[in-house]
Amino acid sequence: MVLAGCGVFDGAEIHEATLTLLSIKKNGADYEIFAPDISQHHVVNHLTGKEMPETRNVLVESARIARGRIKPLSAFNARDFDALIFPGGFGVAKNLCSWAFDGPDCSVNAEVEKAVKDMVSLKKPIGALCISPVLLAKVLGNVEVTLGNSPSDAKNIEKTGSRHITSNHGEVIRDSHRPIFTTPCYMLDADIVQIAEGAENIVQAILDELKQD
Amino acid sequence: MVLAGCGVFDGAEIHEATLTLLSIKKNGADYEIFAPDISQHHVVNHLTGKEMPETRNVLVESARIARGRIKPLSAFNARDFDALIFPGGFGVAKNLCSWAFDGPDCSVNAEVEKAVKDMVSLKKPIGALCISPVLLAKVLGNVEVTLGNSPSDAKNIEKTGSRHITSNHGEVIRDSHRPIFTTPCYMLDADIVQIAEGAENIVQAILDELKQD
Repeated sequence: MVLAGCGVFDGAEIHEATLTLLSIKKNGADYEIFAPDISQHHVVNHLTGKEMPETRNVLVESARIARGRIKPLSAFNARDFDALIFPGGFGVAKNLCSWAFDGPDCSVNAEVEKAVKDMVSLKKPIGALCISPVLLAKVLGNVEVTLGNSPSDAKNIEKTGSRHITSNHGEVIRDSHRPIFTTPCYMLDADIVQIAEGAENIVQAILDELKQD
Repeated sequence: MVLAGCGVFDGAEIHEATLTLLSIKKNGADYEIFAPDISQHHVVNHLTGKEMPETRNVLVESARIARGRIKPLSAFNARDFDALIFPGGFGVAKNLCSWAFDGPDCSVNAEVEKAVKDMVSLKKPIGALCISPVLLAKVLGNVEVTLGNSPSDAKNIEKTGSRHITSNHGEVIRDSHRPIFTTPCYMLDADIVQIAEGAENIVQAILDELKQD
């Protein structure tokens, strides 16, 4: 799993990250957690929504979700893992890439891009929840992903050269050609039970794919 | 739910908080989230375990887990709720009381103490996960609780005048006289599936208690 900090407005979405970890473990698999060792784009007060005059580090804050058991993304080697998964949160679009500011013209963190490309070149599955599919759309450029049901999000995905598939709560979209899985989670107006369903469904889809190999 | 920040070493334990919210909603109940509007005792770098030269606010950091939907604990009114629940994390023993430093001689945040006493006087259930039972042991002074299976933890609980019951993964201890429920979670060496079980079991025990009324 790759995290983007700790908190929906400037980091990784906590419920999506936690419930994905739960689904991985519950289905008999295991996980390691990574995050880039970089500064957050900014720090948001989650009570007021306002920016705070602070600096925080993505790896250090992600370690809160990981209970300290986390490695810098620079240490990730695609050969050591069966799958890669990104929970959502604005941190994905602010720290792992610049989608929140630049949309389809965004840049992507080099370590994230490498991790995605390495997994794809080894034909290994990648999962992305919530806003994270933008990373895959941008890096791969010709992949089918979902961000839920917003027409403007769909239009922005299409501008990367990728294709947007509309989806509803808990639905998992698989690219037609590669084992790339996406599900909307909090991109829709969802409650925590729906997030658990989305996390469970995408993890099961990835594990089913691995069993077929 | 009352939170103590965001992160196991200086705040609320993220998996316990998230999985308790999931269990509440999954079992057909609903929740509101509160935290005291106070400074954290300190800020811990969750990657290195070292203290950081920063100050953070318990309510503001708790808002990360609550996705912004949180109120100051001063606004909590026991009459408005069927039950009260505390997930764990060192923040409970550092921010909500001083157990981490003073053990059974600890002081307890006045708003936390009031919330607990008000619920008890209305005969409403309280649940506490992981380290949080120390709050109930200290405030109530004669309650049966569990912190898992550590003899030194048990001894410290007994010093408050309360009684410690040894427990294992997922087990929920109910006080003989009052609807006070506790479960060990990460006080034992647990994985995230065992945390989900503990959270589910304590939420179900509380809801069963409410159905009997």
